Amino acid sequence: MSVTAAGGFVANGIACGIKESGAPDLSLVSTVDGRPVAAAAVFTQNKMTAAPVVTTDAHLRATGGRAAAVVLNSGCANAATGEQGLADAEAMCALVAGQVGCTAEEVLVCSTGLIGFTLDMDAIRDGVPELVAGRLEEPQGALLAADAILTTDTTRKVSVARGPGFVVGGMAKGAAMLAPNMATMLAVLTTDAAVEPGPLTEVLRAAVADSFNAMSVDGCTSTNDTVILLASGTAGAPGDPAAFGVAVAEVCLDLATQMVGDAEGHTKVVRLTVTGARSDDEARAGARKVAESQLVKCSWYGEDAYWGRIASELGSAGIELVPDRLTVRYGDLVVAEGGVTAPVDAAVLAAYMDQEWLEVTADLGLGEGRARVLTNDLTHAYVDENMGTS
Amino acid sequence: MSVTAAGGFVANGIACGIKESGAPDLSLVSTVDGRPVAAAAVFTQNKMTAAPVVTTDAHLRATGGRAAAVVLNSGCANAATGEQGLADAEAMCALVAGQVGCTAEEVLVCSTGLIGFTLDMDAIRDGVPELVAGRLEEPQGALLAADAILTTDTTRKVSVARGPGFVVGGMAKGAAMLAPNMATMLAVLTTDAAVEPGPLTEVLRAAVADSFNAMSVDGCTSTNDTVILLASGTAGAPGDPAAFGVAVAEVCLDLATQMVGDAEGHTKVVRLTVTGARSDDEARAGARKVAESQLVKCSWYGEDAYWGRIASELGSAGIELVPDRLTVRYGDLVVAEGGVTAPVDAAVLAAYMDQEWLEVTADLGLGEGRARVLTNDLTHAYVDENMGTS
Repeated sequence: MSVTAAGGFVANGIACGIKESGAPDLSLVSTVDGRPVAAAAVFTQNKMTAAPVVTTDAHLRATGGRAAAVVLNSGCANAATGEQGLADAEAMCALVAGQVGCTAEEVLVCSTGLIGFTLDMDAIRDGVPELVAGRLEEPQGALLAADAILTTDTTRKVSVARGPGFVVGGMAKGAAMLAPNMATMLAVLTTDAAVEPGPLTEVLRAAVADSFNAMSVDGCTSTNDTVILLASGTAGAPGDPAAFGVAVAEVCLDLATQMVGDAEGHTKVVRLTVTGARSDDEARAGARKVAESQLVKCSWYGEDAYWGRIASELGSAGIELVPDRLTVRYGDLVVAEGGVTAPVDAAVLAAYMDQEWLEVTADLGLGEGRARVLTNDLTHAYVDENMGTS
Repeated sequence: MSVTAAGGFVANGIACGIKESGAPDLSLVSTVDGRPVAAAAVFTQNKMTAAPVVTTDAHLRATGGRAAAVVLNSGCANAATGEQGLADAEAMCALVAGQVGCTAEEVLVCSTGLIGFTLDMDAIRDGVPELVAGRLEEPQGALLAADAILTTDTTRKVSVARGPGFVVGGMAKGAAMLAPNMATMLAVLTTDAAVEPGPLTEVLRAAVADSFNAMSVDGCTSTNDTVILLASGTAGAPGDPAAFGVAVAEVCLDLATQMVGDAEGHTKVVRLTVTGARSDDEARAGARKVAESQLVKCSWYGEDAYWGRIASELGSAGIELVPDRLTVRYGDLVVAEGGVTAPVDAAVLAAYMDQEWLEVTADLGLGEGRARVLTNDLTHAYVDENMGTS
């Protein structure tokens, strides 16, 4: 049901003592036999790049896109930790490599948690042998691994897609693009399809663009965001490469949707579509501006369909907009047409706004550009969760 | 103490019935004798431009930068109102012109309030004669005018600066860049200095860039934002043109500071300075990204000096950043140096964070670029105020 659904992979998750709560905090996905397989990764664009991101990127470059294991910890981001942080990330890989039976460069590493604090390497050193020795196959290993990467998440996030002759499975964590105490969005996907590192990276990039990069909880980009895809090849080359891309995209979108559905303090999940823009890029810029608007997000929390705020955000998104061509819909209910308020049955609209999942569409009436963003509302609970770091 | 401090101007404010509450909602600033004087304006960049913005811009172009009066209403933005909105804005100007004794094109107009609703023109038609007839000199006229433009503001916002041989005075409204029920930031300044429309516009643009455009309550840009400066010339040409620019900038910055200090639901006002950027533009982009971050704003509300969020926002602001050169200070307290957490006395830091006014400085260590943004925290009260439009 997740990273062990595809043949060739085992996984595990344990509590090694990084989190004071005693919750699981150390996670591993590896090949069954410790041999490296094709690997691809997509990272945060944040320039305050965390040590594990630097290390994983360097390892993939050194091996030409091959890895035998991914080790992940929650409870500490190992970000803004300078030289010590890089040394610790390398040490984590070396510890795992020694137990798995591969080289340190064939291990990738991810961390999520507070920025500005160094890892408890004693806890990790003590935990790695148990972590590696206890690796399990589908489904137990995948579930343990998925639980050990969670931070403020309230639910485990796993997904599987099956294509003709192959399987793609994945796990993820993330309750905000950059969560409060515990930062970051992480995802690890595996497949049994045989795909070389180059095309594997292309498939992953395209899938991420339409999933993880098309959601916005709070407009923040973490220092640690990482998505990794390992391909064991046990099922041979996919007969239908396009179907493989679709399956990877499906797993990424499913995991992204689970994240927004678990967003901190949310009461609404909103699928916001901008159509009729001059280009897809302009549609994307407009959708993102609306999705990141504190005012719009507060409206949704209050179940208020006030479209003036959406129009105002589109108008300041740096994209072409002609007010009298704008149409805004909640579900099928047209709340604005030709740039002015449209008559709508207040009771029907109120009933629509009462739902947890909302579909909002803004049509600019200018062209064929189109984009979709998954987002959520801004609530008292979000403020509560983010007032402090402890 | 405001728009009537400079010789040559009178003002008034009344309740004409636009606001259901019965609060003052119609405001006027005009020359004493109804003759047009040099005028300059700076408008919102929002493409959902409101009717009064379109009208004021057209009037200034038609007259070559001369105006005899500014009429302003609160309680309705006259935005997203199509052809009807433009006709109403023109009608407001014509009504005032008829009473003041100038042409309709010599009247400028501003509106602030809900988007998507048309003006109550009957109320305005009935109110204008009383508004014009009751105009008063300093200080009463200015105070009445300043009160009649307020919406969610909790305090009147007025300012005066005196230079060698001239006076600059102003009034403003705005409690969010785009407030909840009642939108918009508006400001009207007057001076007795004799300055032609061209140079007057240059002085105003520069002053706005460093004041109203250097604050961010919620990152939203209203459809109606307008800043107008009228110059009666009764004091003659300023002997020191640079001093005139300084005085206009001083009034704009004072009014902007009053706005942030009255921001919706705020508990903290934060002056955020980014230094050491490669350029002023990069410093500005970085400061704005931090000031608009929900996560950072929640930290401030929680009196948490967690610098990791500030660093993460700077890292994703699209500007050059080298983690190990970053220094972050709260007041004089260094919380991060060389990109890692710096030791700081927790009790001293807690006492600093307990204040209403916070000074936050992020030095990127890369160059001479520098920018400052005035902002505030994100609170439960902000969410409360913005959950609905009624």
